Amino acid sequence: MPSYTPPLRDLRFVMEELLDVPAAFKALPAHAENDMDTVMAILEEGGKFASEVIFPLNQSGDREGCTHDKTNFTVKAPKGFKEAYAKYVEGGWAALSCDPEYGGQGLPLTINQAFYEMLNSGNQAWTMYPGLTHGAYECLHAHGTPEQKALYLPKITSGEWTGTMCLTESHCGTDLGMLRTKAEPNADGSYKITGNKIFISSGEHDLAENIIHLVLARLPDAPVGSKGISLFIVPKFIPNADQSIGARNPIFCTGLEHKMGIHGNATAQIALDGATGWLVGAPNKGLAAMFVMMNAARIGVGMQSLGLTEVAYQNALAYAKDRIQMRSLSGPKAPDKPADPIIVHADVRKMLLTAKAYAEGGRVLSLFCALLIDTYLNHPDEAKRAEAEEMVALLTPIVKAFITDNGWLATSHCLQVFGGHGFIAEWGMEQYVRDSRINMLYEGTNTIQSLDLLGRKVLGNKGATLKKLGAMMEDFAEECEGIEAMKEFIEPMLKAAELQATLTFEIGSAAQSNPDVVGAAAVDYMRVAGHAVFAYWWARMAKIALEKQDSGDDFYKAKLQTARFYFAKLLPEIETCAATARTGLKPLMETEYALA
Amino acid sequence: MPSYTPPLRDLRFVMEELLDVPAAFKALPAHAENDMDTVMAILEEGGKFASEVIFPLNQSGDREGCTHDKTNFTVKAPKGFKEAYAKYVEGGWAALSCDPEYGGQGLPLTINQAFYEMLNSGNQAWTMYPGLTHGAYECLHAHGTPEQKALYLPKITSGEWTGTMCLTESHCGTDLGMLRTKAEPNADGSYKITGNKIFISSGEHDLAENIIHLVLARLPDAPVGSKGISLFIVPKFIPNADQSIGARNPIFCTGLEHKMGIHGNATAQIALDGATGWLVGAPNKGLAAMFVMMNAARIGVGMQSLGLTEVAYQNALAYAKDRIQMRSLSGPKAPDKPADPIIVHADVRKMLLTAKAYAEGGRVLSLFCALLIDTYLNHPDEAKRAEAEEMVALLTPIVKAFITDNGWLATSHCLQVFGGHGFIAEWGMEQYVRDSRINMLYEGTNTIQSLDLLGRKVLGNKGATLKKLGAMMEDFAEECEGIEAMKEFIEPMLKAAELQATLTFEIGSAAQSNPDVVGAAAVDYMRVAGHAVFAYWWARMAKIALEKQDSGDDFYKAKLQTARFYFAKLLPEIETCAATARTGLKPLMETEYALA
Repeated sequence: MPSYTPPLRDLRFVMEELLDVPAAFKALPAHAENDMDTVMAILEEGGKFASEVIFPLNQSGDREGCTHDKTNFTVKAPKGFKEAYAKYVEGGWAALSCDPEYGGQGLPLTINQAFYEMLNSGNQAWTMYPGLTHGAYECLHAHGTPEQKALYLPKITSGEWTGTMCLTESHCGTDLGMLRTKAEPNADGSYKITGNKIFISSGEHDLAENIIHLVLARLPDAPVGSKGISLFIVPKFIPNADQSIGARNPIFCTGLEHKMGIHGNATAQIALDGATGWLVGAPNKGLAAMFVMMNAARIGVGMQSLGLTEVAYQNALAYAKDRIQMRSLSGPKAPDKPADPIIVHADVRKMLLTAKAYAEGGRVLSLFCALLIDTYLNHPDEAKRAEAEEMVALLTPIVKAFITDNGWLATSHCLQVFGGHGFIAEWGMEQYVRDSRINMLYEGTNTIQSLDLLGRKVLGNKGATLKKLGAMMEDFAEECEGIEAMKEFIEPMLKAAELQATLTFEIGSAAQSNPDVVGAAAVDYMRVAGHAVFAYWWARMAKIALEKQDSGDDFYKAKLQTARFYFAKLLPEIETCAATARTGLKPLMETEYALA
Repeated sequence: MPSYTPPLRDLRFVMEELLDVPAAFKALPAHAENDMDTVMAILEEGGKFASEVIFPLNQSGDREGCTHDKTNFTVKAPKGFKEAYAKYVEGGWAALSCDPEYGGQGLPLTINQAFYEMLNSGNQAWTMYPGLTHGAYECLHAHGTPEQKALYLPKITSGEWTGTMCLTESHCGTDLGMLRTKAEPNADGSYKITGNKIFISSGEHDLAENIIHLVLARLPDAPVGSKGISLFIVPKFIPNADQSIGARNPIFCTGLEHKMGIHGNATAQIALDGATGWLVGAPNKGLAAMFVMMNAARIGVGMQSLGLTEVAYQNALAYAKDRIQMRSLSGPKAPDKPADPIIVHADVRKMLLTAKAYAEGGRVLSLFCALLIDTYLNHPDEAKRAEAEEMVALLTPIVKAFITDNGWLATSHCLQVFGGHGFIAEWGMEQYVRDSRINMLYEGTNTIQSLDLLGRKVLGNKGATLKKLGAMMEDFAEECEGIEAMKEFIEPMLKAAELQATLTFEIGSAAQSNPDVVGAAAVDYMRVAGHAVFAYWWARMAKIALEKQDSGDDFYKAKLQTARFYFAKLLPEIETCAATARTGLKPLMETEYALA
């Protein structure tokens, strides 16, 4: 049976010493009062919820899955999920970073983000119920009419009602322009919505008394393609003006998907049979309204893999220290035992450190992004807001794709540490691998993220935002000038940044004659970009660790060693990525016979 | 629902045009009569069995799994498995490459190997029942007494009885020296065996009337460690002299593992409660006897991932041609449709071609190894036998680890081609990923394989065998001298071989002061070695393809394009592997605080 300890020490390090979150909060009037003790007090309680309430339901939820009742279209979540959700609502966790106007606590998203890492370590499938709800909250908060907000947001904020996002149809996932669900106007200003949706996470369940679906559909006169999509609120039960539950709306779960992982979350097929919905935002602007919350949702997916990487690492480390098998190649290390613990073996250490370095790097990057979001939502200076928004737009696809690709690799490594036992459900490792696989697919596949990064976020403004990121690295390199001990980190960091800049130029030039060049290089480019950013943060962490390595707190020695591992064993991946990116388009596209 | 077409065209290409298997068979008196038409006739029938009999049971077997009856220790395989096995026995497939003295057909292992690739594409979990049986056959055939062979081999050859290998115990997998199962002599020359085994594949089932377990155990006076292990035959039912079924032996399945994949195969916990067994081979030499069949078994695991890679590729290719979504970056390719098929996208092609290149490369390497095994078992010239045995010993860990690591990557890529649908069980892709994961673990984890390759097979004879492999490449390079069109393949092939040679020297030198250096570099080295061998075979395939590209058969154009893809997009992985191998031991071992 696996175990989980919230990484509070590292969270404090990242927030206090690396990002100086309290100082950043001070610049945001809405959050100025959140000092580090407040933050940590919340995270300590949040960690307890993750490790004590939902973590114990993770394996049982996977085994049991969700149960669909075809006669009345209801879904039962696995045993204990409903009770855990009740505790979540009772504890006020749903309201953490919601608007006080609707009953929220108004805390920074950065805190919520750190909380969500722990929730995902505890139980990704369960966490998707409140996670999707928060997405619906943000969408309504940004685009709802005052009346809609007044009617729905208080109950969503409290967590009494949950939310979904109904985008995908069987013939369109990435390409939402093809969607067919229809919305016909009713006389009273509402709409009659008909169609079929699939892959609706948390789409039906018994955790909450009502489910607020946000549904993409087409108005009768809508232009074809993605410019003809509108967004609607379609509640499961139509609320009365006093927020009591009214009539059942004909939006039904007609089936659940059988899938590789996240068994505890209901992935619903949803039929809308003339369901009543209300337009959110402007007609035909539904996709734009939905995409407002995409940054947050994509970062949220990165947090899922971050959480899985962390918990898989913790368990693989414990196993490697405990399991004795064979002797070290350099002679017995535990001569009193019949064999050495397997952690003595270099490759076992490599697999463990890979997971650790990716978890700790991912934690920094995603918290940095959360802080940028808090900044662009709250900073009094418009220029600062714009700058933060621009940077988070660049980094979001990296958080989504780089962290989830790393998570797949890392959880698989952690499974491998267990040898044959890793394949056995009881140990819990194989579930982390299975659960992590969805994160590379949903909210835009990682190929789509890579195209977004290279095509839109980098080449789209001729590298302007990328240059700002490069300037951050150069500034830091300057700060480190003359510090001999930092050379081993600064040099490869600058090399990575330079490689990314060179590749950007090369690809950008080649793409002018054929845009497919971008598609051919995008995934390699994503790995280079991710590593460049990680190298920056690992170098920054190394600097603090160097300064405090003799403080008596071994945490800094550990951090320094992990930084050295990262630069020696993970960063060099960019050499292959650069080589393959540079072989260009021909070996992929002149393959009409090979792929016949 | 996935589909599967046996890759007969490529099998013929590899066997006839690339390896010239008929000529090789002619040099082996036992197999001289097997011409290409004979081989293909068998494989065609074998392919039908794989695609028509067991492939349709693959998804249902995964869903249903095996059922354990705790009251009488029996196990029921999934629906249809027993009937398929009966057809297998009836068709004489079990006897294919078995000794005619015991009723076998005496065909070359090379044919059996190609057959097993197709079986594994069809249904890995089912294929493990006959697969393990063949392992037991080989072990008894090599080490049994004439009486043991006469009693057991005819029924194993026919497939009426199946076999297992009972090695692992809960506290020892890799480190069999620690095993505790006891064997005490009975007065009649048999032994009374007591202990508990786990992870016994095909350990109990209803496919055959008897199961012949090969069990590792310790004699009372055995030396400690791996030098005190003996091998025993422990039949489920003790056969009478006339091979009729006798008394039930107290060797019981006490439970089945719940695991990530291969649900259709019974992974049994086995309790030996004073079961009667008979010594096979010499006392205390059990591990050596078991290891005789390890080459074949490890190559067999490579075939499992090869089979999964091929079938996953076929289905991902079909989906990519069928699924329409978005437009090509360089403008519509199917303007008559609402979107382009996703195969127009460069990264989708990259994922597909990765699977294709790994499948076709793996097919060559494993058939080459099978031919080497046929050679060392049957060649009249002792020097040729020794040479073949030496080469297959070098290549075996590469087949096992490189092909299974590639299989994990490739099946995951194929899943990714399906987007969100890849995560859904119905499409079958996620099962290929789950099933493939075990292949990196059993028969020695891939870390163990890498240590075997670098430590034992390469450095163990100071690179002598590796030099012979290098000479093969140099000979081929010489053969291609002056052929301008071959340069693009020969140059990177030689570069890869040279890199491997250089790394071998560097690691060998460094290991003299600290043997842990081998452990630190072994997995990187494995990737370099695998690619060097693949580069050789892809260059050879490219040569034939170049010669025949205008023959009118598009097969050769396809092969040439895939070769170009391999050299452009997969081979460059060695650049990162070389870089990380060269950063050495320190970043892994000086991590006592990081891994505290």
